[in-house]
Amino acid sequence: MTPLFPHTAITPPVAPASPSRGRVRPLGLSEVTVTGGLWAERQQLNATETLPHIHARLESEGWLSNFDRAARGALPEGRRGREFSDSEVYKYLEALAWEVGRRPDAAAEQTFRDVVARVAAAQEPDGYLNTMFGRAGQAPRWSELEWGHELYCLGHLFQAAVARHRTRPDADDGLVAIARRAADLVCRVFGPGGIERVCGHAEVETGLAELGRALREPHYLAQSALFIERRGHGTLADIEWGRAYFQDDVPVREAHSLRGHAVRANYLAAGAVDVAVEQGDDELLDAVRRQTSHAVARRTYLTGGQGSHHQDEAFGEDWELPADRAYSETCAGVSSVMLSWRLLLADGDPAHADLIERTLFNVVATAVGSDGRSFFYANTLHQRTPGEPVDPETTSPRASSSVRAPWFEVSCCPPNLARTIAALGAYVATADDRGIQVHQYADAEIRTTAPFGDVIAFHVETAYPDDGLIRVRITESPEDPWTLSLRVPSWADSATLTDGRDVQTLAPGMATVHRVFRAGDVIELRLPLEARVTHPHPLIDAVRGSVAIERGPVVYALESTDLGASVDRAVVDRGARPVERDGEVWLPIGIRDDDARTWPYGPADLSAAAAREVRLVPYRDWGDRGPSTMRVWLPTTL
Amino acid sequence: MTPLFPHTAITPPVAPASPSRGRVRPLGLSEVTVTGGLWAERQQLNATETLPHIHARLESEGWLSNFDRAARGALPEGRRGREFSDSEVYKYLEALAWEVGRRPDAAAEQTFRDVVARVAAAQEPDGYLNTMFGRAGQAPRWSELEWGHELYCLGHLFQAAVARHRTRPDADDGLVAIARRAADLVCRVFGPGGIERVCGHAEVETGLAELGRALREPHYLAQSALFIERRGHGTLADIEWGRAYFQDDVPVREAHSLRGHAVRANYLAAGAVDVAVEQGDDELLDAVRRQTSHAVARRTYLTGGQGSHHQDEAFGEDWELPADRAYSETCAGVSSVMLSWRLLLADGDPAHADLIERTLFNVVATAVGSDGRSFFYANTLHQRTPGEPVDPETTSPRASSSVRAPWFEVSCCPPNLARTIAALGAYVATADDRGIQVHQYADAEIRTTAPFGDVIAFHVETAYPDDGLIRVRITESPEDPWTLSLRVPSWADSATLTDGRDVQTLAPGMATVHRVFRAGDVIELRLPLEARVTHPHPLIDAVRGSVAIERGPVVYALESTDLGASVDRAVVDRGARPVERDGEVWLPIGIRDDDARTWPYGPADLSAAAAREVRLVPYRDWGDRGPSTMRVWLPTTL
Repeated sequence: MTPLFPHTAITPPVAPASPSRGRVRPLGLSEVTVTGGLWAERQQLNATETLPHIHARLESEGWLSNFDRAARGALPEGRRGREFSDSEVYKYLEALAWEVGRRPDAAAEQTFRDVVARVAAAQEPDGYLNTMFGRAGQAPRWSELEWGHELYCLGHLFQAAVARHRTRPDADDGLVAIARRAADLVCRVFGPGGIERVCGHAEVETGLAELGRALREPHYLAQSALFIERRGHGTLADIEWGRAYFQDDVPVREAHSLRGHAVRANYLAAGAVDVAVEQGDDELLDAVRRQTSHAVARRTYLTGGQGSHHQDEAFGEDWELPADRAYSETCAGVSSVMLSWRLLLADGDPAHADLIERTLFNVVATAVGSDGRSFFYANTLHQRTPGEPVDPETTSPRASSSVRAPWFEVSCCPPNLARTIAALGAYVATADDRGIQVHQYADAEIRTTAPFGDVIAFHVETAYPDDGLIRVRITESPEDPWTLSLRVPSWADSATLTDGRDVQTLAPGMATVHRVFRAGDVIELRLPLEARVTHPHPLIDAVRGSVAIERGPVVYALESTDLGASVDRAVVDRGARPVERDGEVWLPIGIRDDDARTWPYGPADLSAAAAREVRLVPYRDWGDRGPSTMRVWLPTTL
Repeated sequence: MTPLFPHTAITPPVAPASPSRGRVRPLGLSEVTVTGGLWAERQQLNATETLPHIHARLESEGWLSNFDRAARGALPEGRRGREFSDSEVYKYLEALAWEVGRRPDAAAEQTFRDVVARVAAAQEPDGYLNTMFGRAGQAPRWSELEWGHELYCLGHLFQAAVARHRTRPDADDGLVAIARRAADLVCRVFGPGGIERVCGHAEVETGLAELGRALREPHYLAQSALFIERRGHGTLADIEWGRAYFQDDVPVREAHSLRGHAVRANYLAAGAVDVAVEQGDDELLDAVRRQTSHAVARRTYLTGGQGSHHQDEAFGEDWELPADRAYSETCAGVSSVMLSWRLLLADGDPAHADLIERTLFNVVATAVGSDGRSFFYANTLHQRTPGEPVDPETTSPRASSSVRAPWFEVSCCPPNLARTIAALGAYVATADDRGIQVHQYADAEIRTTAPFGDVIAFHVETAYPDDGLIRVRITESPEDPWTLSLRVPSWADSATLTDGRDVQTLAPGMATVHRVFRAGDVIELRLPLEARVTHPHPLIDAVRGSVAIERGPVVYALESTDLGASVDRAVVDRGARPVERDGEVWLPIGIRDDDARTWPYGPADLSAAAAREVRLVPYRDWGDRGPSTMRVWLPTTL
């Protein structure tokens, strides 16, 4: 492992992950405020639309009242929802906690407390908390580790408690105490000599580790480490898709790639980074780095999305990245951000922030509709048939991917989006003992105490990603020099930086200015934001002979709404280049005959079609104008 | 509908399908004997290895003893297998019936009778027969039409009874009586005013229709017609994948394509053809023609395989044909042959025989291993990871596709292969009132009575598909002229025919010789069997920029065993052509660097790799030399 240093004794950041060591430490929600632009709008939408929508659905689906039934001893009769429905309540609580912490709101605070009280009433005296197991007429506790999700649910409970503890350390609502009792039970039951198995869905690992950090309870971290070490030894039953589905095929230290169910894989890897960092375990951290690099290089979509199989919601094999059957589950995107962020904190490598940015703009931002009340569960890169408008009162099958839906039978994604968006400020910037690193660009106010004790404060002003100018305006600075670092994304091959004195041309990576700053100083980073043509790696079969259009971190899509025909018929000349007009991206596109050969294989067909310029839309906006067909990868003439 | 004429009053052919009208009538197993070549070997293997293997597995899995338990009133305790396990016994009985009919064997006959007796003992007094439903502790009869498969199982029972009735019309084993009692019950329960719904898995439609034909019971056909008309009206519950999964989304007359679960779709369409032909229903037959043409032109793999989704075992959308996630279920191949054959009988169009040939050589022949005791459930066109050898004693998850497995938890495919291969002779040739049509080429003896009353007999002598020469040697012929028709496959663009007098060059279609034949006359068809390069339709995304190699009806594959590297790294120059040496097909192939870009999207990579000649193998033989990676579609330089 690269050398790690203990962070100085600063108050832990108000953030989802707060490792005690690492190359950089996060700046939390008390230090970073997103003030404008796309993400500020999305945070507002999250607060005013998404969170109330989720609350209403948790009630109408009966997933909240499961706790009430548990409290009054009325289960299992009338229990509703799948075995993991408790976790949606916990993710909602986590989202509410971040939101109330970010922007105090008495009504939201009361809602939070009311839900916590209902959860609290369902907890059993020994700390056990789950509405699906352990009662007469239910399966016994911990008897169905493959599919029961009991530990998974508790992992989300722990993360909710961490959010509350970090945003309102003195609150008397009781959520932290609930989590502590449950965590103590987990340590008793699953500790050495106990049930030496793991949960089919990883999550408790990172949840326990973070709860341990937040509450300074090393035995929670130790239990997390036990779970990490146990996985991969086949303590879970084999299933149709093999134990790789729940990463129980190969020990974490030995695996060569993220694999199996994509959300489980990322949650597990996040937990493994937590353990590795806290224990100074270079081997374990290297193992996760290796697996992540492999998966990013060979098993990740252009959007940052992960998961090529609908059937098992899993990563495919290397290079197996079908656009039309992309699963790219929303929760896989969320979990990939969690993992990348932990690796960024450990290593300081801006490549992790590049992937986070890509995933935020093209998976997270795509998965929630402009109404804040409709969601993609899967994020396909190619929609062949237009969907039907979805009744806002309905509940959809989980992987319906043609139209954003208000809720799903398996509805992990909406609250996962909500907690991520509410906590977005925590992914913007980090600090080390030399200064501040800005990783994500949005209008923001950043104010923190430098390791050497003085305040550093600045504003970020930008219309990014529409425009490539990022202006940093210093508002407070120590007398001593410090280093401002700004990420130059990997696609930015001609970025420039001016600090008011020099103009430097930058390579991708971290651009740094080390000097004495004064209030009023302005540093400007200019990122080249021309629309560009992107080709796939030649080993990716599914999109060979196709190109995509990107502009900055934003992936573009062609919709039938703009083409006036099914996007399956689109063809782009190999030499075609996008043009920008009035902030829009256009590309010359031809429309092939939808001919009716009786057998679709034979001699080469080299026919082309006359092209005209057609507008592309940011992928995150697709479907917003109603049902359409859509594709990111555009076939070229061969 | 094209004009149909009633077949003259010849004894019904000993064949799985015997419509009373149509352009051509099948020659059955009493008229066609396959005597040599690949299919004769496969029939022998089927008899000596596959059928005993299936019998042993039906016993060891407990699927046969379910009937014994039913007979002694011991169910549901100890019942084993899925809800459709009865059907595997019936398909096995059908296979045995054809095999005993094809080549009498006292031991096999006794086995058949023993199994029939065990089935008979389980039938209830009113004719009901199913080991999964209707007893105390089981779900009520007909209460789970979506997933219960009760009617599906009976459909296979009816087909088994038809096979027995046609091969041994005077046998006293009782299978036909069992089927008759069950069919009468179905007509009572599901007739007008009864349960006006359908089975989630089509099959009873074609089973009832054929039983009606065999036993001359028009009300069975009428019941089949009722089932056909009811489907598509949403009498089955909606499910995650929509009612299209079981074709209950759109009425059969209105659908534009085969869709949903590929086996269900083909079985249903086969039943619809049966009904349409018997009732002279042009509209219904046209609907099936339209759906089939659509699916063949846009939803079918190069191998003839169908089904692009693992998740729901379903057809994909138009042009959604991933090679690496090809499901191409073995049973879908079998059911496609059933449908194509019925359309061929109705229309006489050799295009249907082309598809049958392609599917037989590349799906049916592939799905059973050279040991006759191992099977593919799914028939992928691209295997990215070598599998592990499979223990011959094990039972595999159903869609394991990297290595042929001895048995599956859902084991529909092995007995479906067995019944198809045992009855293969019935797909070789047809007759009409002008003469004989040969559709499939193998060493064979054909002897039938012409409509005008005299015997026509000839031998087919060929090493096809290794060699393109097909020699027809007349052994008996009437005094009057008649027409010998030989199929010229669609890929054969320079076939020639000589009848000993002239040499004609032929276009694909049916080559005909109309004349007076004499015993000893020889007609020779020469099909061009050079290995050729095949390109995909430009709208098929998944294999764009790739080519396949075919030779005659045989699709070739590249295996890592021959390449010496993962086939994912293979690259073929756009201008490369296959060469043949010593009966083998070789192609210049380069191996790309398996490079380690950290992010697999960016500027174009136009690197190529030095090529050397590598041997390809017939797709049907892949995996025979042990675990390998494999691909049919070979990426070309762009």
